[in-house]
Amino acid sequence: MKTITSTEIKKYESRYRARLINSLSGAKSANLIGTKSLSNQENLCVVSSCFHLGADPALMGVIFRPAVVERHTFENIMETKYFSINHINSSIVKQAHQTSARYPREVSEFNATELNPEYIDEFNAPFVRESLLQIGLELKESQHLSINKTELVIGEIKFVRVPEDFIQPDGFIDLFAANSQAVTGLDCYHSLNQGERLSYAKPDQPAHVLNLDGTIQKK
Amino acid sequence: MKTITSTEIKKYESRYRARLINSLSGAKSANLIGTKSLSNQENLCVVSSCFHLGADPALMGVIFRPAVVERHTFENIMETKYFSINHINSSIVKQAHQTSARYPREVSEFNATELNPEYIDEFNAPFVRESLLQIGLELKESQHLSINKTELVIGEIKFVRVPEDFIQPDGFIDLFAANSQAVTGLDCYHSLNQGERLSYAKPDQPAHVLNLDGTIQKK
Repeated sequence: MKTITSTEIKKYESRYRARLINSLSGAKSANLIGTKSLSNQENLCVVSSCFHLGADPALMGVIFRPAVVERHTFENIMETKYFSINHINSSIVKQAHQTSARYPREVSEFNATELNPEYIDEFNAPFVRESLLQIGLELKESQHLSINKTELVIGEIKFVRVPEDFIQPDGFIDLFAANSQAVTGLDCYHSLNQGERLSYAKPDQPAHVLNLDGTIQKK
Repeated sequence: MKTITSTEIKKYESRYRARLINSLSGAKSANLIGTKSLSNQENLCVVSSCFHLGADPALMGVIFRPAVVERHTFENIMETKYFSINHINSSIVKQAHQTSARYPREVSEFNATELNPEYIDEFNAPFVRESLLQIGLELKESQHLSINKTELVIGEIKFVRVPEDFIQPDGFIDLFAANSQAVTGLDCYHSLNQGERLSYAKPDQPAHVLNLDGTIQKK
């Protein structure tokens, strides 16, 4: 095992450090955030910084980078209060990654990457039609994290769209079926294997392997 | 596509809702957090809520649940300021999951699950010997998120231990080689496939596929 100290980390060239440190948190979710500005300019942005915050109320968090770069998505969320989170599947990985290019504000990444915007009911943010798990969120709060000038945005889930057969009888959603991708580091996209569910752990007994539907697997 | 509204989400039975909402953020990192209390009681806890916060300074965030349950790990971090994050690989998934059982405070989950604590230099938190990517962190700040009574803990990376050959020439760490697991929902553990790296995206050209080492792949 190689040991890397914080002194060495500080000395690294910045892109090397970014690739290394971004690898440390492990698998990250690969999502596209869809927004629209007040002047109806659409924006789409690949993110690996969405996370589960709580189920009741149903909340998700997203970290946005410091304001040294233009942050069209962040600004649109602040202006309009609405955004969509769309799971990236393997068939749209390259288009999704391409949304990270620095397009001018007046360019829609939907057009630039040929992903299709989709509007659902009166919701004021575009979804990605090609995505198999789409979430509509309303901004609840935003916090500036002064420690590194990032922004923590917290959204409440207003609705979810997903093929019904991905939802298991106990509420678990089969993300292997949805082909939802993981990101490691800054730029590596992975598919998940089918996975193995384990039963709720109790101190006095080993966990059982579960079937996909949440029932206990027979040996 | 099935549409689930926030009204329906609120009506769900709480475990069903937890499984469903925990599935929405996509792939999550599967980690073990190691801590020690001031009275030297070791604790180990599986978490899927660690995330990348920034590379310079090198920071990671962790979300802890509300105080309606005992939170030995959170308390230890507040007391001692130190904790370790250890990637879970496929050979320790069942032991890692078992640490989520509600053991009494005086039980070390290392003993209960037969994972091996390892101490490195003077660092005041135990690592998991079986893990192939170990990170030592110092508490920088903790925020109570009043919106759902969770705690956001921010740690600075003090050192990293990883087999040297997993580190690519450009800083990217090969987490397929480390066999680092992803979690979906509350209880499903997945391996990642080898993955595909894509080059830094630019507006005027499509991204290239990269080799693992960051060089452009020849067609």
